Amino acid sequence: MIGLCLVGGGFIGPLHAANIAAHPRAKLQWVVDLDRAVADALAGKYGARATANLDDALADPAVNAVMICTPPRTHALIIERAAIAGKAVFCEKPVDLDMRRVEACGKVLRSTGTPFFVGFNRRFDPGHRALFDAIRKGEIGRPEILVLSSRDPEISPPDYVAAMPFGIFYDTMIHDFDMIRWLLADEPIEVIARTACMLDAKENPHRDPDTAMVMLRMAGGALVHVNSSFRAVYGYDQRIEAFGEKGMLISRNQQPTMLERYGADGIRQDGLLRFFVERYAESYVRELNDFLRALDEQRTPTIGFEDGRRALLIADAAVKSAKSGAPVAIVMEA
Amino acid sequence: MIGLCLVGGGFIGPLHAANIAAHPRAKLQWVVDLDRAVADALAGKYGARATANLDDALADPAVNAVMICTPPRTHALIIERAAIAGKAVFCEKPVDLDMRRVEACGKVLRSTGTPFFVGFNRRFDPGHRALFDAIRKGEIGRPEILVLSSRDPEISPPDYVAAMPFGIFYDTMIHDFDMIRWLLADEPIEVIARTACMLDAKENPHRDPDTAMVMLRMAGGALVHVNSSFRAVYGYDQRIEAFGEKGMLISRNQQPTMLERYGADGIRQDGLLRFFVERYAESYVRELNDFLRALDEQRTPTIGFEDGRRALLIADAAVKSAKSGAPVAIVMEA
Amino acid sequence: MIGLCLVGGGFIGPLHAANIAAHPRAKLQWVVDLDRAVADALAGKYGARATANLDDALADPAVNAVMICTPPRTHALIIERAAIAGKAVFCEKPVDLDMRRVEACGKVLRSTGTPFFVGFNRRFDPGHRALFDAIRKGEIGRPEILVLSSRDPEISPPDYVAAMPFGIFYDTMIHDFDMIRWLLADEPIEVIARTACMLDAKENPHRDPDTAMVMLRMAGGALVHVNSSFRAVYGYDQRIEAFGEKGMLISRNQQPTMLERYGADGIRQDGLLRFFVERYAESYVRELNDFLRALDEQRTPTIGFEDGRRALLIADAAVKSAKSGAPVAIVMEA
Amino acid sequence: MIGLCLVGGGFIGPLHAANIAAHPRAKLQWVVDLDRAVADALAGKYGARATANLDDALADPAVNAVMICTPPRTHALIIERAAIAGKAVFCEKPVDLDMRRVEACGKVLRSTGTPFFVGFNRRFDPGHRALFDAIRKGEIGRPEILVLSSRDPEISPPDYVAAMPFGIFYDTMIHDFDMIRWLLADEPIEVIARTACMLDAKENPHRDPDTAMVMLRMAGGALVHVNSSFRAVYGYDQRIEAFGEKGMLISRNQQPTMLERYGADGIRQDGLLRFFVERYAESYVRELNDFLRALDEQRTPTIGFEDGRRALLIADAAVKSAKSGAPVAIVMEA
Repeated sequence: MIGLCLVGGGFIGPLHAANIAAHPRAKLQWVVDLDRAVADALAGKYGARATANLDDALADPAVNAVMICTPPRTHALIIERAAIAGKAVFCEKPVDLDMRRVEACGKVLRSTGTPFFVGFNRRFDPGHRALFDAIRKGEIGRPEILVLSSRDPEISPPDYVAAMPFGIFYDTMIHDFDMIRWLLADEPIEVIARTACMLDAKENPHRDPDTAMVMLRMAGGALVHVNSSFRAVYGYDQRIEAFGEKGMLISRNQQPTMLERYGADGIRQDGLLRFFVERYAESYVRELNDFLRALDEQRTPTIGFEDGRRALLIADAAVKSAKSGAPVAIVMEA
Repeated sequence: MIGLCLVGGGFIGPLHAANIAAHPRAKLQWVVDLDRAVADALAGKYGARATANLDDALADPAVNAVMICTPPRTHALIIERAAIAGKAVFCEKPVDLDMRRVEACGKVLRSTGTPFFVGFNRRFDPGHRALFDAIRKGEIGRPEILVLSSRDPEISPPDYVAAMPFGIFYDTMIHDFDMIRWLLADEPIEVIARTACMLDAKENPHRDPDTAMVMLRMAGGALVHVNSSFRAVYGYDQRIEAFGEKGMLISRNQQPTMLERYGADGIRQDGLLRFFVERYAESYVRELNDFLRALDEQRTPTIGFEDGRRALLIADAAVKSAKSGAPVAIVMEA
Repeated sequence: MIGLCLVGGGFIGPLHAANIAAHPRAKLQWVVDLDRAVADALAGKYGARATANLDDALADPAVNAVMICTPPRTHALIIERAAIAGKAVFCEKPVDLDMRRVEACGKVLRSTGTPFFVGFNRRFDPGHRALFDAIRKGEIGRPEILVLSSRDPEISPPDYVAAMPFGIFYDTMIHDFDMIRWLLADEPIEVIARTACMLDAKENPHRDPDTAMVMLRMAGGALVHVNSSFRAVYGYDQRIEAFGEKGMLISRNQQPTMLERYGADGIRQDGLLRFFVERYAESYVRELNDFLRALDEQRTPTIGFEDGRRALLIADAAVKSAKSGAPVAIVMEA
Repeated sequence: MIGLCLVGGGFIGPLHAANIAAHPRAKLQWVVDLDRAVADALAGKYGARATANLDDALADPAVNAVMICTPPRTHALIIERAAIAGKAVFCEKPVDLDMRRVEACGKVLRSTGTPFFVGFNRRFDPGHRALFDAIRKGEIGRPEILVLSSRDPEISPPDYVAAMPFGIFYDTMIHDFDMIRWLLADEPIEVIARTACMLDAKENPHRDPDTAMVMLRMAGGALVHVNSSFRAVYGYDQRIEAFGEKGMLISRNQQPTMLERYGADGIRQDGLLRFFVERYAESYVRELNDFLRALDEQRTPTIGFEDGRRALLIADAAVKSAKSGAPVAIVMEA
């Protein structure tokens, strides 16, 4: 059994807690939240202990790993404290939003030899994974064009937006930047980004970009396109299309049901699943399992610190391009 | 060039006339219609001659073949006159609605050696044909279950219904009965039919069946289901599903466009094509071509008198079963 | 919390045990299996107690309800014992395969006033449920034609087949017979069935029907078709099509992923889910929840004894028709 | 009747000749081709006159309009000669590949008041047109993102490629550039293009770009993406996706048949139509009809000189961006 301490009981925390509780190899030992009531409620549900003080949990030898579900700007510090305490770390993306902070964090991880996993959950979506497998098997030969649609049904609340400017790159497309590297097993060498504010002032009072389009060139020559919006009224729209010398792969969206309704006015189907916790429900289960299996087998987790750093580096470059209008070259080496 | 005389300028006649005119190997020589004005209008459009008297056209040596598009009860007589005049015959289904009349007609055809083609156009639908080819190639191995949906958007006008009781079998399902024999290369040995009047008295004043379901057993063991309705509000619904030991084939409907519309209320697409002349437009072109090529190559047309007789025989059995409630055995031999 | 005793630790038992364990309102108290090792293994996984003796569990006041997952012929006896012990009962279909035995069991249930639920899980499939809801809301008006495809990827092992002749009706289509009654809110008045042995002697040594087709007429006039096979090589094929005066509803199959593969030889997608535990995974969760909520709210469970009896009555009639060849009238009243 | 002179009997010429012949309001009067044998063959098929000398046809008062199907570099001269001879002009795109030549040609057209139509046939595709109509009706509100996939199954022969460098922009994407302007009723203000040579030296000996990706910003704020390849092994891939504040529209590809094949290895369907003459067969008929109706009704044809000029201007900018790497601003005014 692997004992886990979950840090951050809001938002995505309860989902991870439920998955830990249902996992045959894991045990939720602690829930840590600055709001002790939140920690108590979540811990109580699964027979874990609660605290507002991270040190309580880190001191417990029954804790083998820390799962970090707090707001982005707190990630690096918690990672470092967990690493120094000798715990493995599962961290929701991103590592941090400031590259220097990320690099400092990386030093700690390297010096402590901490097993570290970044929660790029989309890599575990069954459809995206099948697309990945098909590319690896050579089904489309050399990939030449990659097109990602990555759209949310709505914009985050104003406070959240204010806390993370250019969140369309740092919070949403950062997933796509990771997917591009993973799917193509290649690194981008150039990024060009354009943004727009399409929502009205009431929905988007901070006039942070709510619509974006990015073009990337990969070292191996493939051309990549990503588009995002915070207003997909028909649901959470997540598609990947990979085109290559021998064909094309499309990972399409899922619908709540496969019901077709034929009427005098045409054929209707359900829209898409509306929330990422529904669309990626299985991904969250699978990424946890992948992390735990790596710990069990004492091997390096499949998505590591460098993956987190590089996705952020691409996001930084995209923001720079969106601001300057110019193409921005990307150099990956640390 | 093959000279054709078209008999019957209404309903499906103009469609055939246009196809003849566009065919590189055919020439429309005559249009015959009891209503001379109808004959004049259609003939004028394509530079053909018009008459209300069939003999005028049959006497013309430039006429090699007669295409019969008149109401069903006139078919047999016109077939016989054309056959005696030494013309090849393309006849819209059915040969006749009375089996004795059909058999008398068959005798004339045999004694004159007339090349004869029954217009079971659905055999030439590209999707249905691809399904047929896949069965023949053994893609699903031995066919075990066949399911046909055969639904019209609306019922025929009351006069038409009155002139042909049980038209749901004689006019609509007769196509399916032919398709079953063709697709399975086998003959039914039993038919069980049930009908209902679902339309209200205004739409279906004669209370002729407007909804029907049929189960057939084939000599080779396959089980077959057909269902029909005269009220498919979403369009002309024509599907075939063939299930066998190695898989399943489904020939689906066509839509006017492939446009998908994603909105807050779900995903919408166009309904189905609404009229058989749209759905089977290509079938009509292909069946004409098939008939003309048979004449050119002096071989027996691919859908002959016996196909027409057997489809009618199944329809007769279905009506008998619907009336009596009992399963009805089918013996095909003449 | 509702305490449950699971009887029968093989086959579908572990699935139900896992669902009980994951349910926030339920606690698995006992696992009963004649094979004590099976009971121990399953009980141990969820912290429950194990026994080979049903009485041990029935005597425990912590047990509020009994979930029966044993072979069909043992259902009635266990139902009766649980009912007499004052426990609510969730029973996998069927109640029993012998109608007189079913009726005797019903008397016990009525006299004890036992809350009773038959596990017709397909009613809880999200797609089928959405179809049901759409009919209830009047989306297709009056239903006129219902078509059910109900095919398994493979036949059961010979022992299982030998123990339940005509299992294609008693084990497979019994689900469809229940669905028909539920979807149409109507009762069949006539059934006509045909069967075939399509599998070879090696796969189907007992020559029990492995392929079947049924036609039913409902009291309200609707016509219904069901077809089944024990050899759907492409997966577990479960579709429902409801046609009515205002349109059509189709509940289609689900696929493991939504990946499309475009190659020089066409477009490929995954086949269907292959096992009913995958296809109906969510149905099993939902039916358990429905049962538990009924107990909580002290109302009659949604699928009761009479549903179990009537589905069996239709299956009996189908077998009679398949044997005699004649249509068989159905009278539902007890 | 409108008399037409077709110039250029190869490639797309025969398709247009057949459509003219089948059109109830048109008559093919002349076929002009430098290769007299080509002109003779095509003219003979439709009872038209043949010549290698354009002046013969332009001198004929029975010729009302000239349809230009010759290689691109000859278009401008023929347009001018036809305009001066007082004939209406239907010209396959582009007007010319040299912007100064185009502008000179425009002066002649304006001074002669010639009715002029550029053959951007894709505007007449039923699916694309339905998407256009849906945008106009406001179904997706304000369009925010437009994604076009525009891929050919194979590269043109080396001679053709050598004669038109950057043909991926001038010959293929020029259609998309026109579609973008038409669909959004807006003009691009910036274009950024990237290209690659993915085919090997045998297939693409001139190393002209065979793969391209373009990002455009529209004056109204919408962001647009286009990608092209000359190696879509699965067929002619032409899709449009329009995303807006109220939803999304996708015009999908067509397949030869709607047959689905379910086997042990999954589900297969036909690939896409392979040639633009199949995919856009109906578009060619409709654009001709649109042109002829404009002449009949003496109104300006729906796709005019300025549409041709602007599409070329965007293509020029795309080439400039692909060469320099920098974003290129677009100023539409002449």
